[in-house]
Amino acid sequence: MHLGKIGRNEAGGITRLSFTPEEKEAKAFVADLMEQASLAVDEDAMGNLFGRREGRNPQAPAVLIGSHVDSVVNGGMFDGTAGVLSGIEVLHTLQEHGWQGSHPVEVVAFTDEEGARFSTGMLGSQALVGQLTQEALDSHKDADGMSVAEAMKEAGYDPLKLREAKRDPSTVKAYLELHIEQGKVLESQGLSVGVVTGIVGLRWLHLTLKGEAGHAGTTPMKLRRDPLAAASVVMAYLEDTVKGEADTVGTVGQLRVRPGGINIIPGEVELTMDIRSLSRATLDKVEQALRQFIDDICQERKVHCALDVLHRLEPVSCSPGIVDTIENAVKETGLDLFHLASGAGHDAMVMARMTDVGMIFVRSKDGVSHNPKEWTEKDDLGDGADVLLKTVTALAR
Amino acid sequence: MHLGKIGRNEAGGITRLSFTPEEKEAKAFVADLMEQASLAVDEDAMGNLFGRREGRNPQAPAVLIGSHVDSVVNGGMFDGTAGVLSGIEVLHTLQEHGWQGSHPVEVVAFTDEEGARFSTGMLGSQALVGQLTQEALDSHKDADGMSVAEAMKEAGYDPLKLREAKRDPSTVKAYLELHIEQGKVLESQGLSVGVVTGIVGLRWLHLTLKGEAGHAGTTPMKLRRDPLAAASVVMAYLEDTVKGEADTVGTVGQLRVRPGGINIIPGEVELTMDIRSLSRATLDKVEQALRQFIDDICQERKVHCALDVLHRLEPVSCSPGIVDTIENAVKETGLDLFHLASGAGHDAMVMARMTDVGMIFVRSKDGVSHNPKEWTEKDDLGDGADVLLKTVTALAR
Ligand SMILES: NC(=O)NCCC(=O)O
Ligand SMILES: NC(=O)NCCC(=O)O
Repeated sequence: MHLGKIGRNEAGGITRLSFTPEEKEAKAFVADLMEQASLAVDEDAMGNLFGRREGRNPQAPAVLIGSHVDSVVNGGMFDGTAGVLSGIEVLHTLQEHGWQGSHPVEVVAFTDEEGARFSTGMLGSQALVGQLTQEALDSHKDADGMSVAEAMKEAGYDPLKLREAKRDPSTVKAYLELHIEQGKVLESQGLSVGVVTGIVGLRWLHLTLKGEAGHAGTTPMKLRRDPLAAASVVMAYLEDTVKGEADTVGTVGQLRVRPGGINIIPGEVELTMDIRSLSRATLDKVEQALRQFIDDICQERKVHCALDVLHRLEPVSCSPGIVDTIENAVKETGLDLFHLASGAGHDAMVMARMTDVGMIFVRSKDGVSHNPKEWTEKDDLGDGADVLLKTVTALAR
Repeated sequence: MHLGKIGRNEAGGITRLSFTPEEKEAKAFVADLMEQASLAVDEDAMGNLFGRREGRNPQAPAVLIGSHVDSVVNGGMFDGTAGVLSGIEVLHTLQEHGWQGSHPVEVVAFTDEEGARFSTGMLGSQALVGQLTQEALDSHKDADGMSVAEAMKEAGYDPLKLREAKRDPSTVKAYLELHIEQGKVLESQGLSVGVVTGIVGLRWLHLTLKGEAGHAGTTPMKLRRDPLAAASVVMAYLEDTVKGEADTVGTVGQLRVRPGGINIIPGEVELTMDIRSLSRATLDKVEQALRQFIDDICQERKVHCALDVLHRLEPVSCSPGIVDTIENAVKETGLDLFHLASGAGHDAMVMARMTDVGMIFVRSKDGVSHNPKEWTEKDDLGDGADVLLKTVTALAR
């Protein structure tokens, strides 16, 4: 898998952030593969890459299959790419067998699914469904303060053409995504493939806490306004709260302390919170409780707080018709039928706003993902691709 | 005060880390002032800068007065410099009045008192008392991974000459340091000057927590080994523990999370803890309790921990004879006599291993220090310099 070498560090970790040279190289590699599969290659204004095989009726809406090729920082080489490469393989197989259904079939590599660069993801699919705003391109910034719009320009895209990426919903019949599970459920069941029933909703929150920097030796504890001490209590509260809810998780993945001197009481702390649940009501409840707790603790500690929502996706159920079709494909492939939910977010969540969606999960070794140790066996990917092929031919027939 | 412009950012914060061009510029400025005061200027192998005025008996041990000119990151312009500049002023005054005692008087600007660059301080005074090791120069590194020895070379010093900075104790009669209080005690008493009775001991600890990075969505809470979640509990424990002890403080000033992705469970966290108390027994007790708590919490959470001591200074009492002399000087100056302890560390703590020490504190506005808002009124500095002058003439007589 040559794609797994692009953006790879010595320790085997993959870093392919959106609108960077590494991501461009990965997309060029994918475009090449698409051409080898005799697909008509196209890129939209947001950098989403498409490879299209016409159906007997070019007017019929297309079956879209795909995923993404961007990665988190120091991530694995299967997250996203498994879906893009197996999608191309499926179309290659159709081409080799001269199979043509009534519907066109397209494979897509979406731009910035991960959200690793701008702390807000699904940029490509949001643009495609027409729900990414110009304002969002300006307001979301990377660690160096560069906005999405600026990064697009640097990479040769015109952010003002964003609306051109919006796709007419009548041209799409369904969206199918094969993805590694990124969890341990299939492994614990001894199964290579699973049918996804739904995807958790997520909230990405950004918290800024401002207190007063001061001397670590001369400021008595009771006179402090230490934002990191406040943050530690907030983090412990988040962990406790999500532990008390079913199918719910909460993570602080980023935290920055300023000025960051060993003998200086911090003056400012910024941190992110990623909260997920299969239940929208639970998400609302946890977010509400957290907001209240932060307000109380900041008042008590005389620390100023600002809580911003960076990304909000509601839980999604996969479309029953597509789930049925995938179930049949699993049975035809001779695999055991098994259903599971996704704890990770996927472009399918966004595509669900436009069309019917379905997902096929492939077993992850030790459930590890967003980590260089991410691994999926070739045979499992083969099973997944077989199920994808059968689902595609059933839908595009 | 021209010195307050060196290393100053737009917001008025001072950053003069050791062995940087800013620190070099500050020392050159100070050397100039020393020459204007007709002092014999000398720099030792560690970069400690001396200005000496001979006494009638050049063989007699010298009265050393001084402080430091390095700063923390984004600190204030009085911390350290107040002692160096008032020391030079005192010697200037002696020169103008043709006053000469039996003892030589020297003003010193010590190298790296703050510890802001290498997370371990008092480098200059430690070298002078002969207790800084070659090994310490190699093992302590700055944020870019540069060791003290490497930084010295870059600044034109030879770290292998370290031992030449060791001073013969028989050449020193006493060490006197004027410093801003950096706390609110004098202000709350309405006093410009106080006599320091003792200095808190401090422990600077560095904690590394290693868990397992993973996907923030697909890893159930009970399967996580999240080092930041562990760190938040440790930070809350430190705060609770020190709040329960008299005259004791604890601060986490630095914290770094890796890999630092919004949807990645952290794999590694590093943080520093600064713990201080006037009681050595309390310091031992808090450190012991903290070590036990960290061990327990890391075992419970299957997180690997490593706790290193970066800097350890035991509490110091000022020498009764010097305290007496300062008390008399305060009275002669017509000021109210007031005693207080220092919550900040000072070179006087290290100098106490070699000679008698005393300190004079000058009022800090709002008690703020290690912050651009640090401020001390000119009149208060004048009172402090008067007390210093009278103490010096009494000791060097
Ligand atoms: N599948 C995946 O890792 N998506 C990135 C968004 C998320 O954090 O779930
Ligand atoms: N006085 C002062 O700020 N010293 C630096 C060492 C410390 O943190 O106390």
